[in-house]
Amino acid sequence: MHILVTNDDGVLAPGLLALAQEMRPFGQVTVLAPDRNWSASGHVKTMERPLRVREVTLADGTPALTSDGAPSDCVALALLGVVPEKIDLVVSGINPNANIGYDVTYSGTVTAAMEAVISGVPGVAVSLDSEPGHGELDYGPAARAAAHVVAQVLKRGLPAGVLLNVNVPQRSEAELRGIQITRQGLRVYRDALDTRRDPRGRPYYWIGGDLPTGVDAAGTDFGALRAGYVSVTPLQLDLTAREALDALRGWWDSPSGAENPAV
Amino acid sequence: MHILVTNDDGVLAPGLLALAQEMRPFGQVTVLAPDRNWSASGHVKTMERPLRVREVTLADGTPALTSDGAPSDCVALALLGVVPEKIDLVVSGINPNANIGYDVTYSGTVTAAMEAVISGVPGVAVSLDSEPGHGELDYGPAARAAAHVVAQVLKRGLPAGVLLNVNVPQRSEAELRGIQITRQGLRVYRDALDTRRDPRGRPYYWIGGDLPTGVDAAGTDFGALRAGYVSVTPLQLDLTAREALDALRGWWDSPSGAENPAV
Repeated sequence: MHILVTNDDGVLAPGLLALAQEMRPFGQVTVLAPDRNWSASGHVKTMERPLRVREVTLADGTPALTSDGAPSDCVALALLGVVPEKIDLVVSGINPNANIGYDVTYSGTVTAAMEAVISGVPGVAVSLDSEPGHGELDYGPAARAAAHVVAQVLKRGLPAGVLLNVNVPQRSEAELRGIQITRQGLRVYRDALDTRRDPRGRPYYWIGGDLPTGVDAAGTDFGALRAGYVSVTPLQLDLTAREALDALRGWWDSPSGAENPAV
Repeated sequence: MHILVTNDDGVLAPGLLALAQEMRPFGQVTVLAPDRNWSASGHVKTMERPLRVREVTLADGTPALTSDGAPSDCVALALLGVVPEKIDLVVSGINPNANIGYDVTYSGTVTAAMEAVISGVPGVAVSLDSEPGHGELDYGPAARAAAHVVAQVLKRGLPAGVLLNVNVPQRSEAELRGIQITRQGLRVYRDALDTRRDPRGRPYYWIGGDLPTGVDAAGTDFGALRAGYVSVTPLQLDLTAREALDALRGWWDSPSGAENPAV
């Protein structure tokens, strides 16, 4: 069993180290992760510039690889041959903030797991739902929860085109209430524009605002975290809004949905 | 009616100009688009650096705004107040290449429309399925097909959380066979790693390979394009793999799906 570990906030992040350490009992672990923070970077395929890969040493003395590409680039590089041995599973994280609701489309942590699934390799993304203003985070409980999920993935496999998005509350292991299989919930962003003036009087803009919240519905990722459960959401790469298909077909008043679009 | 036009390959791209011109008959059009190419950039929210917005003039002499952010940043900036007037619809494109199958998660064109939908504004992404080795592209037929779709969106609205992904074959208007409402198809990437050596003998890597292809199934985006139809795919922001939920709940042999994850 050979597991690739990556993340979106850089190869030296403590969340990655905790995750890599918990994956070692399953077999060989290779780390290939970005050399800088790519948070909120989305799903990137870097084709306009070449990428470098170099060796680094993690804080526990183990070797790792790092690249100047995005998280999904790291996965592509590894699967395309920078890591010569076959990879059986890609695990991404541990992100220091939750990736729930619409966050998943922005998240480098989640899109790294998507990239694996596109290449036919199972992918698992792991995030810690840290509280604002936390001090140094303890990634141990989240890493062990991830290992618990990964054990099942290795035993049972994942359906084609599906990845798992795991979010863990910031609690001690004794306080984690268990695992809930959830659906993606509704994230409520509270973004605001902070307009400032540079020394020459010209405006510049920070996208900021309060931390996002979520609709605390039962059965959702957000609801599970709020209730103290580890949230495991199966995500698919097929975004088709199937419930909208029939309505749209009616727009052009043709049973086949076909009509010449010339106005 | 106030339409924001953006894209992912830069404010001066001819595909954006063609699209903006076809949107003008619907009402006010504001252009706010990136100042450089962001292809394959994914869904980005830039919060680690401030963004600039400046005025430019399009090739037809009309004013436009450009930002050093990603396509989704441009949408966020506009909706958060850089464009003071209320925006009723965001249209993104015209991308010079198709965005079908799994492309949608990488696509700056599509994620710009996603960003609109997250903010509660309808979003439409438009791409031209150009042939490899094409010369200068004629975006006119695709822009007029987009106008045909937008007319319906303005008349009927879109369900919450749904955007439209429009792909147009590279054909003359007379040769377009009509509109097909499609589901997201299966994209087959043929990425390969091109390993080279710099003048100092150190390796660097291009992610390259042949152009992606697709599974030519009836009812899919790829199938519609192949058959000469304009493909209109409704996409949703909820990625939950609902068919996998029950199977996953069975993994932990508990009716509630809950179990203490401590190993």
